[in-house]
Amino acid sequence: MKGNIKKIGVLTSGGDAPGMNAAIRAVARACSYYNIECVGFYRGYQGMIEGDYMELTARSVRNIISKGGTILKSARSKEFRTEEGRKKAYEQVKKAGVDALVLIGGDGTFNGGIVFGKEYGIPFIGIPGTIDNDIAGTSSTIGYDTALNTVVECIDKIRDTASSHNRLFFIEVMGRDAGFIALNAGVGAGAEEILLPEEDLGLDRLLESLEKSKRSGKLSSIVVVSEGDKTGKNVFELAEYVTSHLPHYDARVSVLGHMQRGGSPSCFDRVLASKLGVKAVESLLDGQSNAMVGFLDNKIVTTNIEEAIKGSHDINRELLRISDILSV
Amino acid sequence: MKGNIKKIGVLTSGGDAPGMNAAIRAVARACSYYNIECVGFYRGYQGMIEGDYMELTARSVRNIISKGGTILKSARSKEFRTEEGRKKAYEQVKKAGVDALVLIGGDGTFNGGIVFGKEYGIPFIGIPGTIDNDIAGTSSTIGYDTALNTVVECIDKIRDTASSHNRLFFIEVMGRDAGFIALNAGVGAGAEEILLPEEDLGLDRLLESLEKSKRSGKLSSIVVVSEGDKTGKNVFELAEYVTSHLPHYDARVSVLGHMQRGGSPSCFDRVLASKLGVKAVESLLDGQSNAMVGFLDNKIVTTNIEEAIKGSHDINRELLRISDILSV
Amino acid sequence: MKGNIKKIGVLTSGGDAPGMNAAIRAVARACSYYNIECVGFYRGYQGMIEGDYMELTARSVRNIISKGGTILKSARSKEFRTEEGRKKAYEQVKKAGVDALVLIGGDGTFNGGIVFGKEYGIPFIGIPGTIDNDIAGTSSTIGYDTALNTVVECIDKIRDTASSHNRLFFIEVMGRDAGFIALNAGVGAGAEEILLPEEDLGLDRLLESLEKSKRSGKLSSIVVVSEGDKTGKNVFELAEYVTSHLPHYDARVSVLGHMQRGGSPSCFDRVLASKLGVKAVESLLDGQSNAMVGFLDNKIVTTNIEEAIKGSHDINRELLRISDILSV
Amino acid sequence: MKGNIKKIGVLTSGGDAPGMNAAIRAVARACSYYNIECVGFYRGYQGMIEGDYMELTARSVRNIISKGGTILKSARSKEFRTEEGRKKAYEQVKKAGVDALVLIGGDGTFNGGIVFGKEYGIPFIGIPGTIDNDIAGTSSTIGYDTALNTVVECIDKIRDTASSHNRLFFIEVMGRDAGFIALNAGVGAGAEEILLPEEDLGLDRLLESLEKSKRSGKLSSIVVVSEGDKTGKNVFELAEYVTSHLPHYDARVSVLGHMQRGGSPSCFDRVLASKLGVKAVESLLDGQSNAMVGFLDNKIVTTNIEEAIKGSHDINRELLRISDILSV
Repeated sequence: MKGNIKKIGVLTSGGDAPGMNAAIRAVARACSYYNIECVGFYRGYQGMIEGDYMELTARSVRNIISKGGTILKSARSKEFRTEEGRKKAYEQVKKAGVDALVLIGGDGTFNGGIVFGKEYGIPFIGIPGTIDNDIAGTSSTIGYDTALNTVVECIDKIRDTASSHNRLFFIEVMGRDAGFIALNAGVGAGAEEILLPEEDLGLDRLLESLEKSKRSGKLSSIVVVSEGDKTGKNVFELAEYVTSHLPHYDARVSVLGHMQRGGSPSCFDRVLASKLGVKAVESLLDGQSNAMVGFLDNKIVTTNIEEAIKGSHDINRELLRISDILSV
Repeated sequence: MKGNIKKIGVLTSGGDAPGMNAAIRAVARACSYYNIECVGFYRGYQGMIEGDYMELTARSVRNIISKGGTILKSARSKEFRTEEGRKKAYEQVKKAGVDALVLIGGDGTFNGGIVFGKEYGIPFIGIPGTIDNDIAGTSSTIGYDTALNTVVECIDKIRDTASSHNRLFFIEVMGRDAGFIALNAGVGAGAEEILLPEEDLGLDRLLESLEKSKRSGKLSSIVVVSEGDKTGKNVFELAEYVTSHLPHYDARVSVLGHMQRGGSPSCFDRVLASKLGVKAVESLLDGQSNAMVGFLDNKIVTTNIEEAIKGSHDINRELLRISDILSV
Repeated sequence: MKGNIKKIGVLTSGGDAPGMNAAIRAVARACSYYNIECVGFYRGYQGMIEGDYMELTARSVRNIISKGGTILKSARSKEFRTEEGRKKAYEQVKKAGVDALVLIGGDGTFNGGIVFGKEYGIPFIGIPGTIDNDIAGTSSTIGYDTALNTVVECIDKIRDTASSHNRLFFIEVMGRDAGFIALNAGVGAGAEEILLPEEDLGLDRLLESLEKSKRSGKLSSIVVVSEGDKTGKNVFELAEYVTSHLPHYDARVSVLGHMQRGGSPSCFDRVLASKLGVKAVESLLDGQSNAMVGFLDNKIVTTNIEEAIKGSHDINRELLRISDILSV
Repeated sequence: MKGNIKKIGVLTSGGDAPGMNAAIRAVARACSYYNIECVGFYRGYQGMIEGDYMELTARSVRNIISKGGTILKSARSKEFRTEEGRKKAYEQVKKAGVDALVLIGGDGTFNGGIVFGKEYGIPFIGIPGTIDNDIAGTSSTIGYDTALNTVVECIDKIRDTASSHNRLFFIEVMGRDAGFIALNAGVGAGAEEILLPEEDLGLDRLLESLEKSKRSGKLSSIVVVSEGDKTGKNVFELAEYVTSHLPHYDARVSVLGHMQRGGSPSCFDRVLASKLGVKAVESLLDGQSNAMVGFLDNKIVTTNIEEAIKGSHDINRELLRISDILSV
């Protein structure tokens, strides 16, 4: 089966996500299991261009399953977007004796792989690693579940102080183009309102809802706002807008920021990363390429990589509806 | 649609699980949304028998989404297993004006509902709430994801000391009849071996594997053992057996115990509980009964309750295989 | 001893802090132990003015020791700063039959107590509850230790992503006038630089230090900045200033914000609050007033309340020196 | 000042404790700051005997401040208790060019240092690293604060399920000879009773207290038991004894075990370890030896090492008294 693949290169690229290390470990150990070599390129495609990599053995990935971030480091390489850059990368890949690639990251990472694959015929498999969950072909990307827990724990803490002071909090969470974190963490944290990039419910509705909340006896409220929320206002402008219309509210803003990318991965993300890492190696040995491994309907599946990028799966409207019911 | 249902009673029964409060909140708020009343019986069926309940309003379930345990308390009622007990329960249910029930729990809880439903014709919907994940008709029960994270965090801590002292740890986790926690938390924690109730790999295999581990340079090892593991030996006997055969190992035992049932629920469990709670109320209002709501293939579905109990879904053999590959 | 005290009123005022509930519980249970009554005023002095309070019994404070925030809620009352406001408060205190007060909070809270005590002769004891640790007469205020852990956990997460991307992070932590959180959490998180309200080391020094860091092979760096840092630049301006002078740095900013006030209190804060709560009641029964209870040199002590406010204890310069040694 | 010290060796010995890595880092960085070399011996004195060590530079201790366990590993060396063993150790120490030692651990570690120091005249400074807090000359040992938080978080989880089921839990925590963990974590977790090695309150008192608890309306109770509790009964025997006398109690047992040794250190332990590590190096350079650095009355101090071992500081009886008041 394993054909001519004797050495696999793996890299992490784009925004880092908890569980990337668990995926690297799974790739390295699956290689060891199938008696092929494994190297890890540093800083995504940039390390490929610079020939900057380390050998990965079953032992060298020991104890990284619980670590946040990525031991291979990550970057967005401008040089790799040039033909020249990719040429250098190809030369280094050949020099390193690497026959196939496992690419851990999101859209941008996979696009790089597609172009590189077309130009130089290197087989590759993508693993979806991003906290944003905006990749089709998998119901969950690696890091998403951990980010949800991080956000919910932060909002629980903010709820303590919001309740103590009867305050209204606007909390910005990550998600420039996708509202998965805002919607799910918002429901999980019992937020009164959730503002998403996918749907503009209108500022009037927000005011009405907060008015109603107040009347119904709620003394403190949490509004979760996605970075790329559709109202066009950022979280500070929203707070100002609301308090200018509802002056009885004592509003505060919190931007959760980069801590959402870090932390020890949840069990779900570790197991997901473990499954996808093994499957990526087995898919390459099976002769597959140009595909992404994912987790759909409780099974590990492979999807054509261009489908995976195109069809960013839609926000769960049923959950939006449930959020409305629960925030009465 | 809502027909003749004017008041819903909800209870939690059997072993408690994180997220039960989030389910209670969702039931109460869905009732409020649909303008029907809601009461919560204390201590499962025992509170029904004793007419011991509280009114649940949208406000009274405020801020419980993040709390472990169950505000309604839980119990296993012997009296409810008698005809007389159920007769009393029926009388109290009528007296309280309750038209339909939402039952949060596992097998035992659902069995109680089936018998009671047959005898007295009270419509009911079950919500799977147990850390064991041993219910068919849902890929995840409420509390399971949180328990996995709790176990993994504990093993991460034990790994610190195991690595520092080059020790072998046997760690017992919950799961008398089902190995879901052991298998998934074991993979998530990077355990070297996992012993399950579903499969006896033999003690020889365990010795061999640990021998191989040692030879390959591993200095510390973690063996995760399900309460009901199939070797027939408990975790202390296993440790003794192994050290009598492999005396160079310095072995320790840890029984994680009841802390696995507690703690603030993970985002996943809160969202799952929220969806299932709303769906349970809507299913009753829709005229359904004798069913369980669950989460399958990324959708909320209802299953006949007797199917749910019978067909306890099988352990994931693919994950067992992956665990073998990763523990090289 | 207990003389004429038959009922004690307790309140929390100013910014809330984790452990305030543990202090309330200790006050209520100590009252119960000494057979005197206890009530809790809501929203600090405002509840006193409005006669808004609840009875506190040994049972009613059950299970709050682990909860963040304050069940009595907190506020800053403008009305209490007026003579008229305090007159109303006095009338309500008399009406409620309260003979003595326990005031949980910081400077502002204690100032209110001093004025009120002078005007109306109500005995009172202060308990230092604030995350800022800016009160003399105690080596630690309630909530400070928990806030340090919260900040360190957040920075650990940010460190994951900072390391993965070789980035420089500026992290703003609470502390408008006092750098305790910044200095201790900065050392605890292994920050490369710490900027405080107490000391302006100059922006040149910051640039030099970051330059040196880079040369010494550090690829990512964390700069912890107190809200009220002495450079006069806020955290965003600092990031801009540094990247304009050191353009090879890829800088990001994170403002930790209000989550620093929330969360389940650490064991230290719970024990501290328990000791201080009991001591506050015993001090009142002993005939003391106008004092603060605190923890100094491993003992519970009482300090004249005006001393406590005046002599805000100085930043630990020895720790600043150690921070310099460790961030090489 | 630094006289003839050109290279310092550091080791961790005995039971590992969270924060040991922070202490190693501080020692290594202080050495770097004072331009002397630093090596770390593996597995305590055993690595000294075997000449098994690594060079420690400012860079090689990067990012370990947040890690539990000890990168130098720990062990109890039987061989070092023999003259021959110590002779080998001395030869290796000389061979490595090490002029002075920093010993991180507890009683046993310090005893080893005293004997070795007498025999071979190697100057050494001890750093108290043990979760048990049973060392005089410091109000807190490294790891103790973290262990308290770990225990309290576990009991909080158990409290969730205890409350849900109205159960009585007996929880065993570490502390064979010292009840610091039991007493402080017991108060922090709001335990109803605490059993210690230092004081036998008698089993009758326990029964009475539980009886009273039940009568006063408490439905669930937590009894925290030190490993070495003075009643002479272990935690399982205690549970049996109590339920045989108070059959209306539904009792469960939980032994927290080795997870108490692991986990990322608290901010307090990191800062403490940082201060002590720097101070240990500076003390050696100052010509001191045979001493332990500690934290007393908010200051870093040095104590004669034999005093530190002898005078194990007593349990806080005032806290026992407070525990009684609070558990009404």
